[in-house]
Amino acid sequence: MFVYRRRVQFAETDLAGIVHFTCFFRYMEEAEHALWRAAGLSIAKAGETTGWPRLTAAFDFKAPLRFEDEFEVLVRIGAVTQRSLQYEFTVLKAGQLIGRGTLMTALVSKAPDEPMKALDLPEDILARLRSASEPPAGV
Amino acid sequence: MFVYRRRVQFAETDLAGIVHFTCFFRYMEEAEHALWRAAGLSIAKAGETTGWPRLTAAFDFKAPLRFEDEFEVLVRIGAVTQRSLQYEFTVLKAGQLIGRGTLMTALVSKAPDEPMKALDLPEDILARLRSASEPPAGV
Amino acid sequence: MFVYRRRVQFAETDLAGIVHFTCFFRYMEEAEHALWRAAGLSIAKAGETTGWPRLTAAFDFKAPLRFEDEFEVLVRIGAVTQRSLQYEFTVLKAGQLIGRGTLMTALVSKAPDEPMKALDLPEDILARLRSASEPPAGV
Amino acid sequence: MFVYRRRVQFAETDLAGIVHFTCFFRYMEEAEHALWRAAGLSIAKAGETTGWPRLTAAFDFKAPLRFEDEFEVLVRIGAVTQRSLQYEFTVLKAGQLIGRGTLMTALVSKAPDEPMKALDLPEDILARLRSASEPPAGV
Repeated sequence: MFVYRRRVQFAETDLAGIVHFTCFFRYMEEAEHALWRAAGLSIAKAGETTGWPRLTAAFDFKAPLRFEDEFEVLVRIGAVTQRSLQYEFTVLKAGQLIGRGTLMTALVSKAPDEPMKALDLPEDILARLRSASEPPAGV
Repeated sequence: MFVYRRRVQFAETDLAGIVHFTCFFRYMEEAEHALWRAAGLSIAKAGETTGWPRLTAAFDFKAPLRFEDEFEVLVRIGAVTQRSLQYEFTVLKAGQLIGRGTLMTALVSKAPDEPMKALDLPEDILARLRSASEPPAGV
Repeated sequence: MFVYRRRVQFAETDLAGIVHFTCFFRYMEEAEHALWRAAGLSIAKAGETTGWPRLTAAFDFKAPLRFEDEFEVLVRIGAVTQRSLQYEFTVLKAGQLIGRGTLMTALVSKAPDEPMKALDLPEDILARLRSASEPPAGV
Repeated sequence: MFVYRRRVQFAETDLAGIVHFTCFFRYMEEAEHALWRAAGLSIAKAGETTGWPRLTAAFDFKAPLRFEDEFEVLVRIGAVTQRSLQYEFTVLKAGQLIGRGTLMTALVSKAPDEPMKALDLPEDILARLRSASEPPAGV
């Protein structure tokens, strides 16, 4: 389990006084990319001809977040197939469940003037992400 | 079926050259609120002490949108319970399927200093939304 | 004077119940790009190796906008030099002044692995933008 | 001088491969609010009937930021009048100047159903913000 810590910013609130629901998808993505960095990787290195677009994104909202709330996004590697990788996220505020979500991504080549083409997921990247998001053996 | 038309704005793209996936959640919400207006309603009238927070939000991505693309968001009223309303969305670009999503919302009272409290959905609002999003009988 | 019409979206409001101030910079950009389209141009055609980054951006706020407000962004071509183009914007709601702003942009080449390099502004683009934003002679 | 540290997030980039210019206004606001917290204050406490809307906002762009760049926003209290407070910001990446900007704000009462009304700035808030953003005497 990888943990990403964050504080709610003013621009993320809406007229209902709570964080706009779309921001939770940003929070999941920020946590994903922080996991990549913790694994010694970058999901978008300059000059790369591949990308990791979303196949699905979903979130279940349990309680709201408000301006300046500090919260945690827990990331776990979920189902993996040859060409898809699912992340599972839990958002907590001081132990209270705020919500749970998933992002499923694919790896694609994106040559200019060609449609995106799905690629097999590299084993070494999966191994690194798993290692950075899982507790060490024996714990 | 209610149809909301929109064009991709520059700020909605990301370094991969396509619309950032979180924007599709904004598009669904914009279409929802346009449906409310078409039904003669506003989802957030000034001074109101109720709100319509999200219970769940999900989207399946089939093809990307790019800068200046014109697209349509089709809205349909899906499953309705005493205290939840699900919208179903289809995003199309010139007939091509871009993706499909759902938003499930509840109605809550939001008195200051009190937790949100779920309320039964008003029949007249449901009737108006259905009327604005369904084809007339005989069509 | 070119006129871009828009309605405030829910996600653009903040906990103060008004449009978040950063959205006005998005509104100015949307109006700029709509002017380009009205001039038969696109500011970011696929595959282009040039771009129009901002040199300066500024806005003076006179009155707030709220959810679902309809408003207009008036665009005028301001000061132009060999390598910079300034747009002047006025935001109005039913005739009421909401605010005024400017964006100054440059044209740059953006070859991969090279720093951006300023280019002279093409005369034909300037002429088209002027034509699309100015009243016809005799009016 | 108060220093706010941040990393560029993916959703903040645009198709030009750099941070979208509107994000710099978010960065300035985040730094402002971090300064308030460092001063033991919150710019928007729950239940408050006052707010701090923008009078003006401006930014001069010198160099772009890219995905995952780490940067600093330096905040200084600039010109203060009875009813306006200007912040001055400098954005740096590893010592390189990325840009400079300002935000001018007012304090207003915002009773429901009444127009915003400007208030005199409280001396104690100004003193705290100055103290949190200035070097100690003798340095």
